[in-house]
Amino acid sequence: MRAPVVGIVGGGQLARMTAQAAISLDVETRVLASDPLDPAFLASSRAELGDPADLRTLERFAARCDVLTFDHERVEPALVRRLEEAGHAVRPHATTLGFADKSMQRRSLCAAGLPVPPFEIVDDLEGLLAAGRRHGWPLVAKTATGGYDGRGVFELSGPSDAKGLVTTGGAPPLVVEPRLDLVRELSVLVARRPGGETVTYQVVETRQHDGVCVETVAPAPVDEATAALATALAASVAVHADAVGLLAVELFETREGLFVNELAPRPHNSGHWTIEGAITSQFENHLRAILDWPLGDPSMTAGAVVMVNVLGGADPAVDARGNLPAALGVAGVHVHLYGKEGRPGRKLGHVTARGDDPATAAVRARTAAALLTGDDRARCSDTEVSA
Amino acid sequence: MRAPVVGIVGGGQLARMTAQAAISLDVETRVLASDPLDPAFLASSRAELGDPADLRTLERFAARCDVLTFDHERVEPALVRRLEEAGHAVRPHATTLGFADKSMQRRSLCAAGLPVPPFEIVDDLEGLLAAGRRHGWPLVAKTATGGYDGRGVFELSGPSDAKGLVTTGGAPPLVVEPRLDLVRELSVLVARRPGGETVTYQVVETRQHDGVCVETVAPAPVDEATAALATALAASVAVHADAVGLLAVELFETREGLFVNELAPRPHNSGHWTIEGAITSQFENHLRAILDWPLGDPSMTAGAVVMVNVLGGADPAVDARGNLPAALGVAGVHVHLYGKEGRPGRKLGHVTARGDDPATAAVRARTAAALLTGDDRARCSDTEVSA
Repeated sequence: MRAPVVGIVGGGQLARMTAQAAISLDVETRVLASDPLDPAFLASSRAELGDPADLRTLERFAARCDVLTFDHERVEPALVRRLEEAGHAVRPHATTLGFADKSMQRRSLCAAGLPVPPFEIVDDLEGLLAAGRRHGWPLVAKTATGGYDGRGVFELSGPSDAKGLVTTGGAPPLVVEPRLDLVRELSVLVARRPGGETVTYQVVETRQHDGVCVETVAPAPVDEATAALATALAASVAVHADAVGLLAVELFETREGLFVNELAPRPHNSGHWTIEGAITSQFENHLRAILDWPLGDPSMTAGAVVMVNVLGGADPAVDARGNLPAALGVAGVHVHLYGKEGRPGRKLGHVTARGDDPATAAVRARTAAALLTGDDRARCSDTEVSA
Repeated sequence: MRAPVVGIVGGGQLARMTAQAAISLDVETRVLASDPLDPAFLASSRAELGDPADLRTLERFAARCDVLTFDHERVEPALVRRLEEAGHAVRPHATTLGFADKSMQRRSLCAAGLPVPPFEIVDDLEGLLAAGRRHGWPLVAKTATGGYDGRGVFELSGPSDAKGLVTTGGAPPLVVEPRLDLVRELSVLVARRPGGETVTYQVVETRQHDGVCVETVAPAPVDEATAALATALAASVAVHADAVGLLAVELFETREGLFVNELAPRPHNSGHWTIEGAITSQFENHLRAILDWPLGDPSMTAGAVVMVNVLGGADPAVDARGNLPAALGVAGVHVHLYGKEGRPGRKLGHVTARGDDPATAAVRARTAAALLTGDDRARCSDTEVSA
């Protein structure tokens, strides 16, 4: 039997780490990248350049693959549906990819009885102002499509911000919600096979800065009931979205309970800790799920696992690659660099540390990440990690 | 800073797994393979074909790399010395690669006062017969170069076997030793930087069948004093051989004590368990060592780790790739397939399982390996694993 061929549309770090995991299973990966400097283009033996928005390009690519999957959500579900209609195995399905539209996502989850934050879908300034009158200010407005890592999310303190947003081009429709008083943000990863077999990873806390994930802590410091509810919600969302492969379900924990904030039908930044921190990584389980193979054990390999993102700093002279030897001097950390040039706020890599407790692991991971970015103090060192 | 470029001469599974580990560190690997079906050729983004016995090929390859290293010992040390003289960073050094000659190795270790089995270097039948008279039969004869996985090793039950060996071409010189009464075979991996910084992995037991490693158990079931002595011997051998990078030191445990059997200056089959079973894998530490970066923590990630090789069976119709989904159904195992076509006795992959104790881990790893090879019973299920 020849090795199965998985085609990954998009050449980012998710594709790169998926291709790396595929080597162990002797799964051949092909990557459709848009830039020869893309992380996966540099690290894959079968990478090609092409426009993922072009149906012909996608069709030619799909014809050379047994299964098609995605590094990002920037492929039109309509194109994906055309590929499915042509008989290609596309996982996740076009239906699941449709959930990338936040207005559709909110409406669909709400209609299914899943807990989502209070929200409205508005198309214009009048709608924004009406929402402000109903819910009070501030409001959070999100573009329905195209937003990630804090982009496409706007905090509106009052009517003048609302006017500014519609003038400067927050493209409608917008999902509008009151700013919730969060206890913390959580994420649950689910891997699901076509037949419905599912494994769920440990609930993690994700910490954001300016809308970008800077750190995840596994397990999340929540009580047993909250963890169980988060897990159950994520599994329900996976069924509702008919997910195949990895699905990341991001949750808000508030004093009023848990709300489903967002879902991403692919390996996710909040699951990078699983490479060393779980028996089976999210990347291997994504491959196993989309190939319809038995899923791997998602159990943790240590009492606590902390992942810290390595983000490009303001100073372009700081060079994560050059700082790597210093970071490797921190005992017991796992450094991952994605081969990207540094730009402010760009995700250049991540560091994972395992430990008996989150505090110990966090200190190590933050120290190594700070050394990579040239910070003179550990990133987030002012944030306490509770057990 | 651009990514450092490591050139690997040889395209086998060791190169493949080294290239896989290099992705995390954003180290670019180039592979000089001799066959487009080589495991590393299939999995590397920068693989090329060329004859590793040709100096010009090696020179051109070295010129495109920052550091040169090796997947196997089949490169003439004389050629490597020429590369070093031309200013290329070659790690391990030609001196260390010279230890691949078993007659030189035995003499050198013996002269350094390191414990080796009683041995003689003989060049002809007369020498073999004299050795038999001195040590008694049976004798074990090994060709000085070119042997691996049991090839080049001959058991001689008496003078007629000795005559047969010289007639059928056991090329002299031969290393001859009495057959020792082994308690078990051990292996210790050492990673060493150019400046001498060293980390040593847990001592493991290696189990052989027909001279081929079939299984490793970490930690080896030896008492503390034996483990400490094995570790100290391995570190001494690394210094003596001026090793840079990974060095595997294979030891015989006998009732008379420990003997250094053989060394291999590279990542080694007896270290595959470290991919999931140690904080830092042997492949990552090989890269860190040859790049002169701080070495990673070699500590175990579980109480016990068992690695079982997946060897090609007599039936060519049995297909490890086709059997992969069944093997993945065994809970908690890590399957690695090298992308090779099946041939009897060929190393096609390996399976690692972690556990609280070796017996539990062994059952899981053996079961998955047996499913891959289509055995109707677990490989080695008759071998007891002691704690």
